[in-house]
Amino acid sequence: MYDDDVDLYKKHTQNSHNLFNKSLKQHVNGVSHNIRYFKPYPFVTKYSTGKYIIDVDKNKYIDFWMGHWSLILGHTNKTVTKNITKQVSQGWMYGTVNEQTIKLSEIITNTVPIAEKIRYVTTGTEAAMYAVRLARTITGKKIIAKIDGGWHGYTTDLLKAINWPFSESESNGLINEKYIISLPLNNLEASLDILKTVKNNLACIIIEPVLGGGGCIPATKEYLKGLQEFSSRNDSLFILDEIVTGFRFRFGCIYTELDLKPDIVLLGKIVGGGLPIGIICGKKEVMNRSNTISNEKSKRAYIGGGTFSTNPLTMVSGYHTLAMLKNKQIIYDKINKLGMKTRYLLNKTFGNRAAITGKGSLFMVHFLQNDISHITNAADASGCNKRLLYKYHFRLISNNKIFFLPGKQGALSYAHSNEDVKHLINATIKFIEVFRLQSK
Amino acid sequence: MYDDDVDLYKKHTQNSHNLFNKSLKQHVNGVSHNIRYFKPYPFVTKYSTGKYIIDVDKNKYIDFWMGHWSLILGHTNKTVTKNITKQVSQGWMYGTVNEQTIKLSEIITNTVPIAEKIRYVTTGTEAAMYAVRLARTITGKKIIAKIDGGWHGYTTDLLKAINWPFSESESNGLINEKYIISLPLNNLEASLDILKTVKNNLACIIIEPVLGGGGCIPATKEYLKGLQEFSSRNDSLFILDEIVTGFRFRFGCIYTELDLKPDIVLLGKIVGGGLPIGIICGKKEVMNRSNTISNEKSKRAYIGGGTFSTNPLTMVSGYHTLAMLKNKQIIYDKINKLGMKTRYLLNKTFGNRAAITGKGSLFMVHFLQNDISHITNAADASGCNKRLLYKYHFRLISNNKIFFLPGKQGALSYAHSNEDVKHLINATIKFIEVFRLQSK
Repeated sequence: MYDDDVDLYKKHTQNSHNLFNKSLKQHVNGVSHNIRYFKPYPFVTKYSTGKYIIDVDKNKYIDFWMGHWSLILGHTNKTVTKNITKQVSQGWMYGTVNEQTIKLSEIITNTVPIAEKIRYVTTGTEAAMYAVRLARTITGKKIIAKIDGGWHGYTTDLLKAINWPFSESESNGLINEKYIISLPLNNLEASLDILKTVKNNLACIIIEPVLGGGGCIPATKEYLKGLQEFSSRNDSLFILDEIVTGFRFRFGCIYTELDLKPDIVLLGKIVGGGLPIGIICGKKEVMNRSNTISNEKSKRAYIGGGTFSTNPLTMVSGYHTLAMLKNKQIIYDKINKLGMKTRYLLNKTFGNRAAITGKGSLFMVHFLQNDISHITNAADASGCNKRLLYKYHFRLISNNKIFFLPGKQGALSYAHSNEDVKHLINATIKFIEVFRLQSK
Repeated sequence: MYDDDVDLYKKHTQNSHNLFNKSLKQHVNGVSHNIRYFKPYPFVTKYSTGKYIIDVDKNKYIDFWMGHWSLILGHTNKTVTKNITKQVSQGWMYGTVNEQTIKLSEIITNTVPIAEKIRYVTTGTEAAMYAVRLARTITGKKIIAKIDGGWHGYTTDLLKAINWPFSESESNGLINEKYIISLPLNNLEASLDILKTVKNNLACIIIEPVLGGGGCIPATKEYLKGLQEFSSRNDSLFILDEIVTGFRFRFGCIYTELDLKPDIVLLGKIVGGGLPIGIICGKKEVMNRSNTISNEKSKRAYIGGGTFSTNPLTMVSGYHTLAMLKNKQIIYDKINKLGMKTRYLLNKTFGNRAAITGKGSLFMVHFLQNDISHITNAADASGCNKRLLYKYHFRLISNNKIFFLPGKQGALSYAHSNEDVKHLINATIKFIEVFRLQSK
């Protein structure tokens, strides 16, 4: 079964094999992002278009990875392509205030109420680092509460409790871990118990409204509201990391729909249309603590931006992506409906063999085992059969030319269609059959 | 004088004024990088081409800022433009291993001997963060030694001793400062005295071979060798931050010329051709401590990459920039000669009113005051008349359409010519005259 899939994959990816051997010599483990490696070797991409990603052996995969879920319009959307191309001829690096930024900010400030002030950085990792620095500056406290399995990038300030077992350090060489505590998603009682132990030194709570890397699991409204209330009662900041969820389900953030009032919101991915971006936005009085002109050093939170912040390619790519989303409600209607359909059909197909999580155009399969029957947090997700998930995703790649980054959630884009969902479901039925997955 | 310059600037930048007022409402202090603000307001860029940056009022400035010194070929170099444009149509975000990366890595590994293994990230800030994490992991020690005025981005791990007075914290909200110590550039004796106090807990020394933000001051070979020797003798790592200097003076890094043997080298700016990039490279045994497959969590240094690492636009932009530099030695010959000429003529023009620092195509003016006569480190640079430097740069913008980011070093590119140097010198002569700068 799995061995056959590997043989088939190898047969179809000989150029990738050769090139990846080269990449292995050049790069640590052949990659520049740990999750991009999979066995026996990842295919090597040549180009992408619409819903497809194409490798150096001309295999054309239906792409459900969509650039770490950043491409909501699919690859090389015509309008966005045209405008990035135009911008290339007018310069891709200014290092100055520019018109392109003001246009993108206009659309964001008009759409995200909390975004009274914006600062652009280049990655989500940087955005999260600055957000907790702001929180520590404003509150004068040190401890950051995050969620078990919560992912906010690689900053030293937040690198803890990402993978199971959550109590184990993620890395050597860190020195801030004692200031990070971690909470079980959707278990308000247990979370509040933990929070109470540090309430006098709690700078902020930071949470993704839909746990992304941790298993594509929506936080409940009650849970989010409970955390927000606790942080507000204890003079801590409530930070929503909407890097994945912002502009994913609707034109704007998900927090307004959930009736939340965060102090800081992080954006990324979709708002840059797939080019490098991170955004910290928030209320005026919060963000202004980073103003280096009106605050002396000891009072300010030093927030950079970096050489590449507001580079015009990202600004134009983000602006035209958002402008399209704004003008065509049909996009959200379509992808949300496709997502619902995908989850419904996967659920029906797998029966009690798997749980399907997700929201809107995001979805993920969890192969149930032991006594796990529901996925409410990252511990549940971690307890599922990850090897089987890997085999499932790998079979989709090798046999069906369907690409999920093995082990990761899938994202639908405007370039996907009902046909793709059908193709996925048929491939899934075959997988269950070939791997003889027993119903429980 | 200065007031006249401001009036003139305002007269020519009315559209910028209006747009920047909008930007002020949207962004903290109107910018997304603190240094990009200058009084009365920065002009707003519309596009760039060759040696020019053009604002929304159609003012066409000769650009010596060159995108934070990242554009060694000038703006919109024809070959690079053509290839980025082609890549846009083939996708700008894959989130997978790709062919474009392997091509860029080939040129880097063949040129930079230390680069036995590479990892790409998206910014220099991230690269520096990972480098010190690696150092802490490998040595099991905690303290980072940097240089007074040394700039390695905004990571919490390195945010200290950047601006005068170096002993004052740069920001509230930091929690690692006690693990950072700082050394005076080019004063080996004093530096070794400081290092000796922490030698048993010294993870690494990190240094720019030419202090960039700190004043465009080359470190002497003896100083660099002395630090390297100390770190090697005490089982600490020696990290060279060549984000500004890599591929700036020659095809490759400056460390080989200086006969150094660093453990880790950081690259950025030029190697991405102006698009977002950061690179950590080093010896195999050093870099492999970040391999998440061969190391368990407690032994590894967790180095990400991030969503945008190895995005194909950056890879193509970097590759074609380096390919041009490799094939045309005339580029380095030209810009190094232009740089030498610029420093020589500025020196001659200012006489003992200012000291001119720099190397190759980088240069900076320091207005001497009090008892400072030479610029050997960031303390000297900080003691100079920065307000006058600001006025000088602002006058160049308002009267002469020459753009330096006020207060920062200048960079020449392949797009600049002898005429531009002449124009700069004539403007400088006029500045001395109008501001009645007295010779000492």
